[in-house]
Amino acid sequence: MQRIEDYREEFIAYLEEKSKLKEPINLYEPITYILSLGGKRLRPILTLMTADIFGADYKKALDAALAVEVFHNFSLVHDDIMDDAPLRRGKATVHEKWDINTGILSGDAMLITAYQLFENYEGEVFRSLAKLFSKTAIEVCEGQQYDVDFETRDDVTIPEYLKMIEYKTAVLVGAAMKMGAIIANASTEGQDSIYEFGRNLGIAFQLQDDYLDAFGDPKTFGKQVGGDIIENKKTFLYLKALAQSAPEQVSELEHLFSIQPVDATEKIDTVKSIFLESGAAERTQKEIVIYTEKAFDVLAKLEISEEKKLVLKNFGESLMQRKV
Amino acid sequence: MQRIEDYREEFIAYLEEKSKLKEPINLYEPITYILSLGGKRLRPILTLMTADIFGADYKKALDAALAVEVFHNFSLVHDDIMDDAPLRRGKATVHEKWDINTGILSGDAMLITAYQLFENYEGEVFRSLAKLFSKTAIEVCEGQQYDVDFETRDDVTIPEYLKMIEYKTAVLVGAAMKMGAIIANASTEGQDSIYEFGRNLGIAFQLQDDYLDAFGDPKTFGKQVGGDIIENKKTFLYLKALAQSAPEQVSELEHLFSIQPVDATEKIDTVKSIFLESGAAERTQKEIVIYTEKAFDVLAKLEISEEKKLVLKNFGESLMQRKV
Repeated sequence: MQRIEDYREEFIAYLEEKSKLKEPINLYEPITYILSLGGKRLRPILTLMTADIFGADYKKALDAALAVEVFHNFSLVHDDIMDDAPLRRGKATVHEKWDINTGILSGDAMLITAYQLFENYEGEVFRSLAKLFSKTAIEVCEGQQYDVDFETRDDVTIPEYLKMIEYKTAVLVGAAMKMGAIIANASTEGQDSIYEFGRNLGIAFQLQDDYLDAFGDPKTFGKQVGGDIIENKKTFLYLKALAQSAPEQVSELEHLFSIQPVDATEKIDTVKSIFLESGAAERTQKEIVIYTEKAFDVLAKLEISEEKKLVLKNFGESLMQRKV
Repeated sequence: MQRIEDYREEFIAYLEEKSKLKEPINLYEPITYILSLGGKRLRPILTLMTADIFGADYKKALDAALAVEVFHNFSLVHDDIMDDAPLRRGKATVHEKWDINTGILSGDAMLITAYQLFENYEGEVFRSLAKLFSKTAIEVCEGQQYDVDFETRDDVTIPEYLKMIEYKTAVLVGAAMKMGAIIANASTEGQDSIYEFGRNLGIAFQLQDDYLDAFGDPKTFGKQVGGDIIENKKTFLYLKALAQSAPEQVSELEHLFSIQPVDATEKIDTVKSIFLESGAAERTQKEIVIYTEKAFDVLAKLEISEEKKLVLKNFGESLMQRKV
């Protein structure tokens, strides 16, 4: 087993090696740009790590890891157009640096490129990877659609919200890991279990993201603290606060989530105190633990060494203790 | 062998059977909408016909035919956003009827859905279809990018233009036919030859489209005659006229292709007379014949009955004699 940092370095070296500029430049330059912006590279690391855990040479998983990262960045490029986002990882988004048409077309090319990377695998491995990838990709689109739909709905339920983040975020984490298992020729049970591990960890990860967006430390949290509150995003915190507050607080919260004040400081403070007083903040932390535990429960079923289980557990715990 | 009309009916019935609305409605309704708008269904018909010609039950090719049609419509949805086109087949485009975000996301889902349709084939057939599809899809994106690039370039050459229409239009015609051959387990030579047949016919088809856009009969041509001239599109006609005209006509043509008069009647008339006087119109018709003949030359190499060759030849000729 390697250290996380080794997988990351190996992956980035491979990414750079494969990022050759091709004609037409205007199609491929934005792809090289977005892929070079960095990020934690969590998903491709998970693919490499899982291949390693199930006994394969993890370098055999580099093409699948790259496919996962290219797909993730495809979804960022198209989502950023839809969200009208000017910045991604502190740099201009593709449609800002170029234009919307470039963002659409380069994104399309990335989705196809991801599929092509699976052609480096033979026979049934190719088929399994492509099939899992398609299922996951369509779920990510569905998750994005639910997210868009929720913006204009005021009757979103907690189960609906959980399904949305599962589709939009968690299934790709599960799939990234399952791909490593497929490449390592793990048993069907092993493949399915590691998918469940990743999927549950992915849900916990997104709930953690919701929590940190409101209660993260501005010094360490990468994005603007309170961003979701400013944008009136119906996160788990908000939905739980609505469900658990007295009628007066419900009205105040609903009112605050219908306005966009120029200076949002007071709004953020009030909303955060409702999140705390209603118990929604605590409930969210509890939910994060529940999904993390669900992920860890799966480990017991896996036919891998205790040492390898520990690697997965440590990785999960490091994610949940993150401040970024 | 069936009649073209039989393939079309069978395909449309299959399309309707598969067009079940799923959740989230806002993702899948636009897909059902665009696929139901009609069109000639040429590409899927070619897939079914080719499977039949190479000795397979053509119904085995229905999923691949549907993948081709879904992909073609994906490219229309995204291209219509990029071109800011309000109408498609006389009806509102997806981004007009819904919005740009819906067009982007539903298009993405269509691209993935096309890949999923290949999962209905086993082993090497699946691999061959998916691989050919990816190669074709990325070329279509590149062709679209060249088309976008050409809008702001005034040094586009004829070979560059031909490459653009080959990628944007012709490779999908070739791929649609090759998929039928793959499903019928045709020899590699047979697969490659039928691809060349379709690719050359596709180039001829697009040149014919350019020609009809200027010289078609307004009574039978589906689109507005002179549309390319109004939009200052650098078509084969335009590039040939520039290459073959006297300096004075070149200046006039370049001037006319830099303006957008409210009433374009005079501009269209003048441009058309330059197209005729320079010999560009005649040269375009000659080029259409050249590519059609290239396609027919391939037929000689094919190991299929003379009767079947005649079916392909008749189909090619009917395309070239079309007024629509």
